[in-house]
Amino acid sequence: MKAMRFDGNSVVLEQLPRPDAVGESLIRVTAVGVCNTDLEIVRGYAGFRGTLGHEFVGVVEASPDPSWIGARVVGEINCGCGHCPSCAGGDPRHCRNRTVIGIVGRDGAMAEYVSVPECNLVRVPDSVTDDEAVFVEPLAAACEILHQVSIDSDTSVALVGDGKLGLLIGQVIAATGARLTAFGRHGSKLALLAGKGASTRLSADGFDDVTGKFDVVVEASGSAGGFAMAQAIVRPKGTIVLKSTIHGDVPFDSTALIVNEVTLVGSRCGRFEWAIELLERREVDVNSMISRRMKLNDGPRVIEAAGEPGVLKVIVEV
Amino acid sequence: MKAMRFDGNSVVLEQLPRPDAVGESLIRVTAVGVCNTDLEIVRGYAGFRGTLGHEFVGVVEASPDPSWIGARVVGEINCGCGHCPSCAGGDPRHCRNRTVIGIVGRDGAMAEYVSVPECNLVRVPDSVTDDEAVFVEPLAAACEILHQVSIDSDTSVALVGDGKLGLLIGQVIAATGARLTAFGRHGSKLALLAGKGASTRLSADGFDDVTGKFDVVVEASGSAGGFAMAQAIVRPKGTIVLKSTIHGDVPFDSTALIVNEVTLVGSRCGRFEWAIELLERREVDVNSMISRRMKLNDGPRVIEAAGEPGVLKVIVEV
Repeated sequence: MKAMRFDGNSVVLEQLPRPDAVGESLIRVTAVGVCNTDLEIVRGYAGFRGTLGHEFVGVVEASPDPSWIGARVVGEINCGCGHCPSCAGGDPRHCRNRTVIGIVGRDGAMAEYVSVPECNLVRVPDSVTDDEAVFVEPLAAACEILHQVSIDSDTSVALVGDGKLGLLIGQVIAATGARLTAFGRHGSKLALLAGKGASTRLSADGFDDVTGKFDVVVEASGSAGGFAMAQAIVRPKGTIVLKSTIHGDVPFDSTALIVNEVTLVGSRCGRFEWAIELLERREVDVNSMISRRMKLNDGPRVIEAAGEPGVLKVIVEV
Repeated sequence: MKAMRFDGNSVVLEQLPRPDAVGESLIRVTAVGVCNTDLEIVRGYAGFRGTLGHEFVGVVEASPDPSWIGARVVGEINCGCGHCPSCAGGDPRHCRNRTVIGIVGRDGAMAEYVSVPECNLVRVPDSVTDDEAVFVEPLAAACEILHQVSIDSDTSVALVGDGKLGLLIGQVIAATGARLTAFGRHGSKLALLAGKGASTRLSADGFDDVTGKFDVVVEASGSAGGFAMAQAIVRPKGTIVLKSTIHGDVPFDSTALIVNEVTLVGSRCGRFEWAIELLERREVDVNSMISRRMKLNDGPRVIEAAGEPGVLKVIVEV
């Protein structure tokens, strides 16, 4: 089969044997999305080597439980050991010995086939297209915020960042009825959130008028400037959700955090079910976030395309 | 009256008029403690100028409500504007226009008299001595943690830091029945917490064996090393409470916070009532934390004494 691999230096479309998938399910991949994490892996993040890709949809070709065969599925990306307290508690996302599809110690889905533990499979309803299903993983990561922080129609929320993940987070928050203000760098991207009822502002226009104003601030820009802004605009006793790794020196003000009793919450992967529900109910528009549609045969160009300025989601058809 | 003042450069025992205390209560101070914040103010923290001291006990000499006169009291240190949403909600601690006794824009209690808003006064029960009452303010700051984070007998808690505030925090946490491990630099100080049932360890002995182990870690050392340790020993989805401002560069690992979904909570002042209850019930031993007893007439030497290595609380009798 063909697989898009990262060897530590470059991305190469290689010919490989199909995965053995012993004790797991073999998925014939139909589409896969390119995530910022893929771009970071190619820059050396996490030291990953192997097949890229973790936002995928496909059809089960083989499985220990034959009732899965033929099912159209997405897959949770954290694969636990099955024995530790975290796994025993039903949450392999924080298993210390986990592998993560296409990110840590396990081949990803930017290939014709991918092996996935059966317990990670989630069926895709007929009403959700393949394009939409590719967004289930990042959308679940956006939903995770609502599992961690109380947000309802009385909550004033600021979102910092209008990238792919930011736009999903903004839509998930808008769906709660919260009063959302989205800060970003691109009027064209923010327009999607304006259409969902959010106030939108260009970060470059400053934020002095909203210092200390927001109950919850979600930092999804991954920039030191975005985090500094989050610390400035959160209210006393408010919460900052950190959703994107910040590279370089992080301007962390421990005095302000303590004096204002601010809470800072790290947030990563979420459960898929809620994300699928949001897609079924058409509460989140992911189709307008697709910038380009490419083929696995396009090889490393799909990664390059995803890194171009202004590009949101690149969907790779397999 | 005599008052211990900081003029921006040095500490001086000055002769001043009594406070007018217009619309407030006039307290004749009987004892005041020296806090690390006083030591930091003298090093330039917060740009404070005026009479030092915010851990005090005294007797009401005059008050708009005469029923207070003659009462033995302590005083909450945050004085709100009375009008903003925070004050209207009964919590002047986060009023944006607040003054703070001996810290921000208002003279402190290291003097013969101090002026305090009536709503900040809290009566001291007869069973609590003046020495003990001096600890109400920092003990309330320790109790604040329990208002912010769920800690019970099933919780594994690590405390980093065995200074004055650390020892109070350790005792408050021990009183919940939580499994407490206290890390510090001084076996002699940690002994107080060992006596309350805590496991105690010298930070210098390392912590590799407890990486990712604790549900809650309270950082009360105010050091970059202590914060790095807190980040290392908290478990995935655990909570770090930041109780002490960290000076210098702060080694903040945003990737680990996000990947492990750790929560970081800033914690400052607490309500006095719970602290007084703990003292009444003899659940916290503050008397053995008194290193020296000095007089207001000792002048700047009380500040110097409090800064000496190994010294815990210096009580200043007025």
